Amino acid sequence: MNEKDIKFWSDVSRNIMDEASEVISPLVGTEKGGEIVKMGADGTPTKLIDLVAEDKVVEILEATGRPVTLISEEIGEHKIGEGASEVVFVVDPLDGTSNAVKNIPAYGISIAVADASKKSKTINSTQSGTANPSEMESNKFKDSNVHDLTIRDIELGFVKNIATGDVYEGVKGCGATLNGKKLIPSTLQDISASSVGAYIYRAEMDKIDGLCKTVRRMRILGSVAIELCYVADGTYDAFIDIRGNLRIVDVSAAKLIINETNGLVTDENCKELNGGLNVLERTSIVAACNKNIHKDIIKILGGI
Amino acid sequence: MNEKDIKFWSDVSRNIMDEASEVISPLVGTEKGGEIVKMGADGTPTKLIDLVAEDKVVEILEATGRPVTLISEEIGEHKIGEGASEVVFVVDPLDGTSNAVKNIPAYGISIAVADASKKSKTINSTQSGTANPSEMESNKFKDSNVHDLTIRDIELGFVKNIATGDVYEGVKGCGATLNGKKLIPSTLQDISASSVGAYIYRAEMDKIDGLCKTVRRMRILGSVAIELCYVADGTYDAFIDIRGNLRIVDVSAAKLIINETNGLVTDENCKELNGGLNVLERTSIVAACNKNIHKDIIKILGGI
Repeated sequence: MNEKDIKFWSDVSRNIMDEASEVISPLVGTEKGGEIVKMGADGTPTKLIDLVAEDKVVEILEATGRPVTLISEEIGEHKIGEGASEVVFVVDPLDGTSNAVKNIPAYGISIAVADASKKSKTINSTQSGTANPSEMESNKFKDSNVHDLTIRDIELGFVKNIATGDVYEGVKGCGATLNGKKLIPSTLQDISASSVGAYIYRAEMDKIDGLCKTVRRMRILGSVAIELCYVADGTYDAFIDIRGNLRIVDVSAAKLIINETNGLVTDENCKELNGGLNVLERTSIVAACNKNIHKDIIKILGGI
Repeated sequence: MNEKDIKFWSDVSRNIMDEASEVISPLVGTEKGGEIVKMGADGTPTKLIDLVAEDKVVEILEATGRPVTLISEEIGEHKIGEGASEVVFVVDPLDGTSNAVKNIPAYGISIAVADASKKSKTINSTQSGTANPSEMESNKFKDSNVHDLTIRDIELGFVKNIATGDVYEGVKGCGATLNGKKLIPSTLQDISASSVGAYIYRAEMDKIDGLCKTVRRMRILGSVAIELCYVADGTYDAFIDIRGNLRIVDVSAAKLIINETNGLVTDENCKELNGGLNVLERTSIVAACNKNIHKDIIKILGGI
């Protein structure tokens, strides 16, 4: 993605974060916000507060006037505008819905952006050396590229903790920030002194046993996107969810942000995440501030 | 405690909550706030942010000009003013210190107040029928009553979530409120649908196994006082810590608040908490919004 596009889609993303925060605000901490209004595309119930947030995302993307594919929890895959999608927006409009409904101050929005024209551009560039009108023409017929994209193709990542206003941003190859300041992860090397976010209920207890006995502090705040960003900013030393039902969509932005601080994000078997950008792909996750902590956790979980 | 004293000590408590919030504010999310400055009376390290909060508590109690015994994490037992203590203030000046230092939005202050003159007054009233000068005289020599008080003698309870500004208050026999509105706990009867705060790391895993498999949602926010109040306000259905190292001091205010919403608070063996008001007494805790949820949890933990 070129600088101009990075700026454009970053501004769109920031606008989405601001507007979504505002539109859900009257529903936070209310029973009404928690009313189930339909079934989402991912097979889980959609609450009113989720829908209100997602509608705002769609509205803002439509207003750009540019072709976009939106992948989002409730709506599934949704094409916006004419022609081949320039980008794919992978959005969790409200991460931590039950926290928002109960007013536990950990809920937010996650936005990850992949360049949908990249693969076709590569082909064209190889042929012609530069972008040209025929490339734009060819894009019209290459929207199937969207389905070839995986979490590894994410180039921009944004996570906002709506409850606190904190905004995490990452640009592939260019670093990551919290409220505009460079993120500095923990340098801890000793797992026994670690603070770890860990979703261990309804998980396999024999894997969890060693972890519970080893770490210093464990947290479960109820917002995976925010807690993954806590690995990037040094609040946590690691984050673990081995239940295998985390949506790729929910972790796409935060994964990029962690990687941009040189943190590690894999599944519980130490494999790089490579899930497709759709609402049905699920994964386990082990994210850590550095190699040693990551290695120790994988070992404790029995993954290597 | 008579109405006039309830009002007086409630105003003092509210003043402490406001002033302590303000004085720690510049240290929240800073490394400086987390610097260890000494060992506390409870045998755990005191961080700068803890000390700053506690110093403010002492300052405000001293300014009342009335005799008080303060029981607090860092200072231990501390007598303020001349003569027999009218009340005992049981304070955790900063609950969730590590959250405050890392800017995780769940940290607060807990204040519980017991009437220290009650037992001697009862004796005098039986003798003379009314309070009289000799009663005041006798109080001077009866400050040992302070050491006879237990968590059951708490008459006023205050918990403020400093990160959100939410204030929980309870007056024994008169109900409990959140920001002035009557608290309404959850009416859930089905444990499999429950949201539970549960400190399960470094606990006995065989007890925890069943719990992890049963509940719908588990949270560990890192501030016991606030999470106990979540049982009173319907955010949680229950709260469990069976590691046996919760300080009586830290749970005194929230226990009263839960009890005032007809919630149940016991140890893991279903015994009523009866610990003395000092920084060394520790306990396990099972708090629930109602009898059925409480019974189910005790059963799962193997307590009955």
